[in-house]
Amino acid sequence: MNGAESLVRTLCEGGIELCFTNPGTSEIHLVDALSRAPGLRGVPCLFEGVCVGAADGFARMTGRPAATLLHLGPGLSNGLANLHNAKRARVPLLVIVGDHAQFHKRYDAPLTSDIEALAWPFSSWVRTTRSASEVGALGADAIAAARTAPGHIATLIVSADHAWSDGGKVAALPIRSETRPAQSASIQQARIMLTNGEPTAIVLGGRGAHGRGLRLAGRIAEATGASLLAQFSFCRLERGEGRPLVERIFYDTRLAMKQLSQFRQLILVDCPAPVAFFGDADLPSDLTAPGSLCHHLHAPGDNCEDALQELADALSTRGTAATHRTPGRPQLPHGAITLDGLAAVVGALLPPQAIVVDESITSGRGMMSATRGAPPHDWLVNTGGSIGLGVPLAIGASIASPNRDVLCLSGDGSLMYTLQGLWTVVREALPITTVVFSNRSYRILKGAFDQTLSEMPERAAALLDLDRPNLDFVSLAEGMGMPARRVESLEAFARALAAGFESRQPNLIEVPLAG
Amino acid sequence: MNGAESLVRTLCEGGIELCFTNPGTSEIHLVDALSRAPGLRGVPCLFEGVCVGAADGFARMTGRPAATLLHLGPGLSNGLANLHNAKRARVPLLVIVGDHAQFHKRYDAPLTSDIEALAWPFSSWVRTTRSASEVGALGADAIAAARTAPGHIATLIVSADHAWSDGGKVAALPIRSETRPAQSASIQQARIMLTNGEPTAIVLGGRGAHGRGLRLAGRIAEATGASLLAQFSFCRLERGEGRPLVERIFYDTRLAMKQLSQFRQLILVDCPAPVAFFGDADLPSDLTAPGSLCHHLHAPGDNCEDALQELADALSTRGTAATHRTPGRPQLPHGAITLDGLAAVVGALLPPQAIVVDESITSGRGMMSATRGAPPHDWLVNTGGSIGLGVPLAIGASIASPNRDVLCLSGDGSLMYTLQGLWTVVREALPITTVVFSNRSYRILKGAFDQTLSEMPERAAALLDLDRPNLDFVSLAEGMGMPARRVESLEAFARALAAGFESRQPNLIEVPLAG
Repeated sequence: MNGAESLVRTLCEGGIELCFTNPGTSEIHLVDALSRAPGLRGVPCLFEGVCVGAADGFARMTGRPAATLLHLGPGLSNGLANLHNAKRARVPLLVIVGDHAQFHKRYDAPLTSDIEALAWPFSSWVRTTRSASEVGALGADAIAAARTAPGHIATLIVSADHAWSDGGKVAALPIRSETRPAQSASIQQARIMLTNGEPTAIVLGGRGAHGRGLRLAGRIAEATGASLLAQFSFCRLERGEGRPLVERIFYDTRLAMKQLSQFRQLILVDCPAPVAFFGDADLPSDLTAPGSLCHHLHAPGDNCEDALQELADALSTRGTAATHRTPGRPQLPHGAITLDGLAAVVGALLPPQAIVVDESITSGRGMMSATRGAPPHDWLVNTGGSIGLGVPLAIGASIASPNRDVLCLSGDGSLMYTLQGLWTVVREALPITTVVFSNRSYRILKGAFDQTLSEMPERAAALLDLDRPNLDFVSLAEGMGMPARRVESLEAFARALAAGFESRQPNLIEVPLAG
Repeated sequence: MNGAESLVRTLCEGGIELCFTNPGTSEIHLVDALSRAPGLRGVPCLFEGVCVGAADGFARMTGRPAATLLHLGPGLSNGLANLHNAKRARVPLLVIVGDHAQFHKRYDAPLTSDIEALAWPFSSWVRTTRSASEVGALGADAIAAARTAPGHIATLIVSADHAWSDGGKVAALPIRSETRPAQSASIQQARIMLTNGEPTAIVLGGRGAHGRGLRLAGRIAEATGASLLAQFSFCRLERGEGRPLVERIFYDTRLAMKQLSQFRQLILVDCPAPVAFFGDADLPSDLTAPGSLCHHLHAPGDNCEDALQELADALSTRGTAATHRTPGRPQLPHGAITLDGLAAVVGALLPPQAIVVDESITSGRGMMSATRGAPPHDWLVNTGGSIGLGVPLAIGASIASPNRDVLCLSGDGSLMYTLQGLWTVVREALPITTVVFSNRSYRILKGAFDQTLSEMPERAAALLDLDRPNLDFVSLAEGMGMPARRVESLEAFARALAAGFESRQPNLIEVPLAG
């Protein structure tokens, strides 16, 4: 057995089911081994940022790592921006990078670079193979590192000769260490905060915003009157009918400060204290009200669900009924396209158990409000601020949840970063409806400009505009085999959205907005 | 004057004319300053890899650095793959990256990352501003670092508060140090090698393959009977009618070894000794014939043109007439599309002073042979092996040489990495004809697979195919406002190519090839 086969078999035995690939010559033996492993599904992508973002989406929905297979330093480089986002999402993710044969490295051939140096800024674990016989063991270590709570990026660099040489050994995962118990002092502190009568919010991130974590947080909020907030850059939020209402912290620094000024105490669950997205000369970076108290419910590596359980027990919430009132759904609106109208259409039509991937930036600011009363669904957003994550994230989420409808909301600027992802959506026949809001500019930057500087010179506007030429997303999608349509009214948007969900096929809707 | 303005004015005074931009909120003051500087042209790109590759293309044609303006660590990350290529091309290039305000960094906001760590693997010079007052001086240092021979990547990270704060000072470039003189011992060694009767090749890279360097190399070859070779990964090769014939070293290791086995001596001009692109279990990485002698004509930082001049003088070639025989041009072929036929069409129709950017990978292997007798032209190729450089390089080369026709030859796989570049071609109305050879696979990887492994499993082929869905490049180009057509015969290709050159407008030709 060669090193490549030992790695692939180790991955299979270690529970890795998926590998998003954009390989090259140095990974050819890994491709061969992958293609002979029935338990490991290879998904080709035309750009590495798609591979990494898709693995992030898969991890968000399953809690499990997927693998990516990338080509030397440049292939890894192309994946780094979405690796930054994945690091911020604190998901488990396994990056496999092929390298030159070890004997070839000293010749400094054109594709040579310092892959470890490139990997470290966004990885918690980086190793390079030293022999074929250790490839399997390093693969197992990488999986274990990726799975270490709350979730980490592990990068394994495989020299081509270690992949092709005999002597590979399949390795078993190391025994997982027990999750550390929550600190009871910390739980008691939270209990005191929730019962001392001060206005208090529980801020949810990571695993606190969905599943068992969210249910427990909802019970605690119900029993104590605390508010539930989510970080602006949350990983995965379960919401809709029957679920606890969680307010997202605003992007805008002033709005977020006002929002948080209601609270004297914040209890942080699987997330850091809220800070401004960008620094501002006239505003603090720390969003919390002066004099307010921030308390971490648990240490970073601890299981937040267990900590929430302890807190719920300490508060004796067991008998608390989940009586979350669900707001109504919006009526289907009519007429000319407005941002509020578009949000109302989504709120009215979102099917049960949908997954919404939201990279709509300025155009989708009303979407979360309009979908509060929709049937139960998940909401995924960009965690690291590096745009170009939407379609890749949707790919991974869809593969993780094949029976669910995925709605990918994207700005035009953000869609263009990883447009290549549409091809993989079609290749894998994923039921993703992509809506692109085409305002023909990096609108958020124009907003930042207007807020910070006086008048925008024409030449500055020209650097932030996406017109001349306008992007025709119908044509772009069709160029990758994806059915697409442009809508010019809210009725047309509603029809297209309903048809998109109904089809359970890849499709795109372009929504032109006023410039 | 704020720091941003001091930087932009320093760039203008330091001879920077161009800035390829994909900014974000943290660069908004730099955008503002840039838009107020008439001498500095901002060129917007939809993806950072386009910015960097375009700056590379500009530098290859002018020898001068252009700037790029990128958004924090993720923006830089998206540019790294083409920065790898630019490093290998050893061109001067100035990377400006905006960062959070310094006071904001300790809050670890979502977009925070270690930008210096990301920059170092592909930069020779990296600095982060510490105050508004030093922004200008660091800008001048960065230009000087970029211009240090043979050409370097300098990355300047500008904290947002240093851009927006007052106290900026325009800085003058440091006095440039004299180029070190060539080592006369080294020149004499080369003279001996060229006159001892042993079969000898002069291998050209960097500035040795165009302009004065190439003319001198041609005279030396003419006078001594030495052969002229170019590295497989050369930066810029001048060729065609009246120019010295330079053979490119083959990509295929066996063919390159055979090619180099003719020579007992290699004189290396502005390039390293030839090595295999990838390591192979059964072949050496060093391509030179066993026992042959490799001699560097000059030290890496030395001016290769001066060294060639000294060598020419030592050989008394002054009277040598340039009698380079020019091969004939191919006749315009007819009929069904073949790779040889496509190459013959290009050879027959290439206009005088064209710039050919060649990232056609397997489909264009015959192109250089067929264009030997074409009118004088430049040929630019991928220097670092990271595909997705073609269109960006063409953008920069075209802006550098507005009166010349640019022909960008691309594989389908390579075009998809930085497809967004087509938008900038249209935005800037650049006379670039892009030809995409659509064989619907990563053909080079299938070749590597076939050479290395026995049979290709169907699941492996599926990871290397670009079909299902097929990419429709006419639709993709039109989606970015670029006129495009698909050709199904050599006659149609010839008509489309002639019309493309004639138009002096952006245009794309898709050439479907047998799968």
